[in-house]
Amino acid sequence: MSRLRWIAASVVAAFATASPAAAADDTLLLKQAQQLFKMLPKDMGTPDLPLTTARVELGRILFFDPRFTIDANMSCTTCHQPALYGTDGLATSIGVQQRPHPRNAPTILNSALSITHWRGDRDSVEDQVIKAMTSPITFGQPNEKAVLDRLARIPGYAPLFKAAFPDDAAAMTAQNIAKAIGAFERTLVTPSPFDAYLAGNISALSPTARVGLEKFINTGCIACHEGVGVGGTMYRKFGVMEDYWKATGSQIIDKGRVDVTKAPDDLYVFRVPSLRNVAMTAPYFHDGWVAALHDAVRVMARVQLGLTLTDADARDIVTFLDSLTGELPAKFGTIPALPPGAVPPVK
Amino acid sequence: MSRLRWIAASVVAAFATASPAAAADDTLLLKQAQQLFKMLPKDMGTPDLPLTTARVELGRILFFDPRFTIDANMSCTTCHQPALYGTDGLATSIGVQQRPHPRNAPTILNSALSITHWRGDRDSVEDQVIKAMTSPITFGQPNEKAVLDRLARIPGYAPLFKAAFPDDAAAMTAQNIAKAIGAFERTLVTPSPFDAYLAGNISALSPTARVGLEKFINTGCIACHEGVGVGGTMYRKFGVMEDYWKATGSQIIDKGRVDVTKAPDDLYVFRVPSLRNVAMTAPYFHDGWVAALHDAVRVMARVQLGLTLTDADARDIVTFLDSLTGELPAKFGTIPALPPGAVPPVK
Repeated sequence: MSRLRWIAASVVAAFATASPAAAADDTLLLKQAQQLFKMLPKDMGTPDLPLTTARVELGRILFFDPRFTIDANMSCTTCHQPALYGTDGLATSIGVQQRPHPRNAPTILNSALSITHWRGDRDSVEDQVIKAMTSPITFGQPNEKAVLDRLARIPGYAPLFKAAFPDDAAAMTAQNIAKAIGAFERTLVTPSPFDAYLAGNISALSPTARVGLEKFINTGCIACHEGVGVGGTMYRKFGVMEDYWKATGSQIIDKGRVDVTKAPDDLYVFRVPSLRNVAMTAPYFHDGWVAALHDAVRVMARVQLGLTLTDADARDIVTFLDSLTGELPAKFGTIPALPPGAVPPVK
Repeated sequence: MSRLRWIAASVVAAFATASPAAAADDTLLLKQAQQLFKMLPKDMGTPDLPLTTARVELGRILFFDPRFTIDANMSCTTCHQPALYGTDGLATSIGVQQRPHPRNAPTILNSALSITHWRGDRDSVEDQVIKAMTSPITFGQPNEKAVLDRLARIPGYAPLFKAAFPDDAAAMTAQNIAKAIGAFERTLVTPSPFDAYLAGNISALSPTARVGLEKFINTGCIACHEGVGVGGTMYRKFGVMEDYWKATGSQIIDKGRVDVTKAPDDLYVFRVPSLRNVAMTAPYFHDGWVAALHDAVRVMARVQLGLTLTDADARDIVTFLDSLTGELPAKFGTIPALPPGAVPPVK
């Protein structure tokens, strides 16, 4: 038995001492689920990062604005499209000037609940924004000043920054861009039928979804995919029982977190992704090599747990995962009209 | 006096026979405006192109979906962004694989009222979609089949096509993609304060905007910018009184419609663009060379009418043009959740 399966089995056993049939009981299953998972919060603000209306609205506008990247033709929404639930549908993203991103674009929905990026090389959603500005792939700008110069050419932005950061003498700064976009992202939570279930409404999940939830727990998926995000909070080796690239057919061998930490134990280690909205965010894994969720579930069982799931088991688990899909948040699903103005033409 | 100014002067004279001061009169100005312009229709459907709910919704979804272009990373919204009022904010657009578009992306708002494209080389918004699929710049696909193959990989599309085209044995066709996207586009009208004014509400325009309207008429802008779109319906030489590229400093000399028709008279001829939402769609002209609307107005007066506008005149006209900005239509400003699924990874 793998270590992950052993952990999962221990969790299950703690609830199943009275009767072996207990897991089939809907009330017990709900109690188990309430121990393992957590409902989404109202937002992901912190005392230090207040989600004022002006700050969130500025962040939302910046998120949709393509005029700050090197060729002024890509915005945050290019790789994090609302229509695709905050992803881009690609295996690995295509950045500015057709430069390839090395990994699959994670959704920004609920993202402030997770370790940031597949390898955890960003400290927070705000840190991600700051580093994106000068990433050769993401913004492609040589420095933060180049971004600020573009902003300054669009007269409508100054009052928006002033309103969002009223106490700052100079409001239009790279740090404030990051705080504003971070504030916007921290509002993007997607309550789902599973949250209604966790609140006590058993029928919010269909009987099949509840069977899937039980299998999700008993198979051992919950050893990593737990908590409010159903994942997102820990690092794990991808490919415990066998190499992931053999199981998926991927032609990309990614060393993962070792390239960040230089610690040999971090070879092939990635963050465990949150499974919220997973049904809407194909393709799967850090390399996006698997297109169908059903296949992704079977790959995970195989490489992480050493199990071969039946098609029926995988189908039930997928039905449970479907219940993690929430509505697109209104702030993300409606488009702000940007302050008008052209930045210098790119020739 | 240039021919355009002569036409404009004739129109004005027809209303101004009673008293030279009559143009200052608000009621007379409204009557003039009602003769020269027209309120937007409810939509831009035709008997042959019905705007059924299913067809419009399918078109809207397709419009936002990036998975059909060659690298699956650009959708119609890339160059026609809702946040930028259906344009991309660039002088000239950047297509798939960083390939340059030769001209400025026109807004799709109200676009079915206008000649399609700067050179009129598309017959309709539907014809534009069909040709975009195999344009090396726009979709970059080798043929329509490649687009349809992508569509077929996303299971959620078949029922949407069936609902949109219930009488077609094979609903998922390139023609129907074009009809659906066209249907969506034909809903995108943007009623503005100017429409309320044309309906008889004089105070829908500020006094300055009304002065600007009067100057717009009397200067001769209305010789070309007339009708429901305040332009969009005729071809004109750009650069009547002098070469436009000299007046704008543009380094692009575009021969215009002559490259389409091969008729020598079409040298430097372009469609007259609609001025609806013009304040939101910088930069200006077919080459996007001019960033500010105030400058664009002065360039037009100079090269088309041989006039040097004062700053005050240009400002007043810009204030009038501001009144042509409507609300972003709800169907364009809210984002549909796309049918989930990944197309083959692009490596």
